[in-house]
Amino acid sequence: MPSEFDLIGRYFTRPAPGAVLGVGDDAAILRPTPDTELVVSTDMLVEGTHFLPGADPEDLGWKTLAVNVSDLAAMGARPRWALLALALPAAEEAWIAAFARGLFACADRFGIDLIGGDTTRGPRNLCVTIGGEVPAGKALRRSGARPGDDIWVSGRPGLAALGLALLQGRARLATDWQAGCLAALQRPQPRVDLGLALRDLASAAIDVSDGLLADLGHILEQSAVSAVLEFERLPDAALAACPDRALAQNCLLAGGDDYELLFTAPPARRAAIASLVAHGPALSRIGAIGAARPGSLRVLDTAGREMTIECKGYDHFPSTRGIADAQ
Amino acid sequence: MPSEFDLIGRYFTRPAPGAVLGVGDDAAILRPTPDTELVVSTDMLVEGTHFLPGADPEDLGWKTLAVNVSDLAAMGARPRWALLALALPAAEEAWIAAFARGLFACADRFGIDLIGGDTTRGPRNLCVTIGGEVPAGKALRRSGARPGDDIWVSGRPGLAALGLALLQGRARLATDWQAGCLAALQRPQPRVDLGLALRDLASAAIDVSDGLLADLGHILEQSAVSAVLEFERLPDAALAACPDRALAQNCLLAGGDDYELLFTAPPARRAAIASLVAHGPALSRIGAIGAARPGSLRVLDTAGREMTIECKGYDHFPSTRGIADAQ
Repeated sequence: MPSEFDLIGRYFTRPAPGAVLGVGDDAAILRPTPDTELVVSTDMLVEGTHFLPGADPEDLGWKTLAVNVSDLAAMGARPRWALLALALPAAEEAWIAAFARGLFACADRFGIDLIGGDTTRGPRNLCVTIGGEVPAGKALRRSGARPGDDIWVSGRPGLAALGLALLQGRARLATDWQAGCLAALQRPQPRVDLGLALRDLASAAIDVSDGLLADLGHILEQSAVSAVLEFERLPDAALAACPDRALAQNCLLAGGDDYELLFTAPPARRAAIASLVAHGPALSRIGAIGAARPGSLRVLDTAGREMTIECKGYDHFPSTRGIADAQ
Repeated sequence: MPSEFDLIGRYFTRPAPGAVLGVGDDAAILRPTPDTELVVSTDMLVEGTHFLPGADPEDLGWKTLAVNVSDLAAMGARPRWALLALALPAAEEAWIAAFARGLFACADRFGIDLIGGDTTRGPRNLCVTIGGEVPAGKALRRSGARPGDDIWVSGRPGLAALGLALLQGRARLATDWQAGCLAALQRPQPRVDLGLALRDLASAAIDVSDGLLADLGHILEQSAVSAVLEFERLPDAALAACPDRALAQNCLLAGGDDYELLFTAPPARRAAIASLVAHGPALSRIGAIGAARPGSLRVLDTAGREMTIECKGYDHFPSTRGIADAQ
């Protein structure tokens, strides 16, 4: 069996032109670009909680990095470097090779150098820390939403959660939508270019990882504002994909793992934001920020009546949710 | 049961004066000090591989951060920021509170801000990513050792491995040494001040996490040099602590988890290095770098004869080693 160091060397050591020193020492060395701020985040993916046992390792490699890239996209930062800590039950070379292919496909797509990491034995756990840069003072935060701002979301939220429901046998999906829902789940596309374009347009941003309402809730809390969503304005892909309307609606409003950007912006930016669609994902204006009780959120139906929403998002600990419980 | 967000908020959100933005957004924002390089590393600790089930959570909190701090010490960098990704089998509040106490004790000791992280459900896994700074070009690397350099080690390597052997019932230790060996295992003291002082003195450095010989091996490989160690010059604490000489010798030469610094320096620096002892751990000059076959390493006994060493270090994957196997 190859040793830990052989495996690291063979699959995870590549030139890191964006670093002074990459994989192979006690730490990596980076030279920050003058007048930029460093933006860093970490995300841990656990087998049974974030992905199903037996998940395709190449997809997992992509997704492990992509979910971290998405956090930087939500800050308007350009991703540059990543570290990978990996616990595996055994030194499974074929698995590692496929995982590395997926990871580096994502790294190459977004211009990221893998500069360090750790490999160890244990229950399968994939932890990436990502670093990127933003011009000083330009990062998008959750705390900048103001009453009167529009609320926008990119892409087609809900499809990833439907893909998971399909894999778990909890949903039937329209044939035409199955591949798209699985791709949304397994190969999420972080919205880096959109995040960069929003630096001068958006007042607040977050990526949709825990569910649309839950993530909007974080903006509302940190900005101390309220919101009203118009259900008919939400992207209707999830409703089109799944004939079970209750499930589709739940995935749309509360499904995790979409990695779309949810952001706010003053109405004066509408034309500029709408023009971004020419080079990126669909953008839907779905509601407005208000000055009611901070954190309060209402969803209105087509008749303007408030809808009753049961499940507002994803929390890893309560025992009623999560992949692990669904099995 | 408190939600994930409650737990994060309650135990891991503290002011981060060294960051522009700390815990609570999609990512943290840091402002690098001009003319410095950023030094980053990540280490993952897995229950059953790196620590015993039932290990004291406060000790674990300290150690999870300390092993990362040690990586920066080995680079001559000043630690500044850390991110914590945490997988736990359940939202065990008492465990989390104690873990946070230990983690912040280490953070406060070394002036580190916890700026972000992730909490999730899964088999217990503690992953820290640490960032620090070093004046541009001043980082200590593994690759700088030159023939003729002295080889030095700090402190008393081997004690942590003896502490583990004691806990596992594999060793009897002299009564006076038991507490010291357990402290070495459970509360390692990263050598940050020593690393800073060595920036202008050492030619290469590494921290002893995988075992003295294995970690020296990394310096030899990356510097393309050889080494000769004189066994009698090694710190004799492990031999004093444990009457089983074979076990003591193995812990001294191949025991992991000591987090001492192993470094090389030209003989002209001997006096300057020796003077560092006034404000830090013991420093032992244990051998010399040579120009024999790159990577080759000989250990000589008191008579100058080459010793036969069976186990040269720690590898997480081979099934003959590791805490998990010992149980």
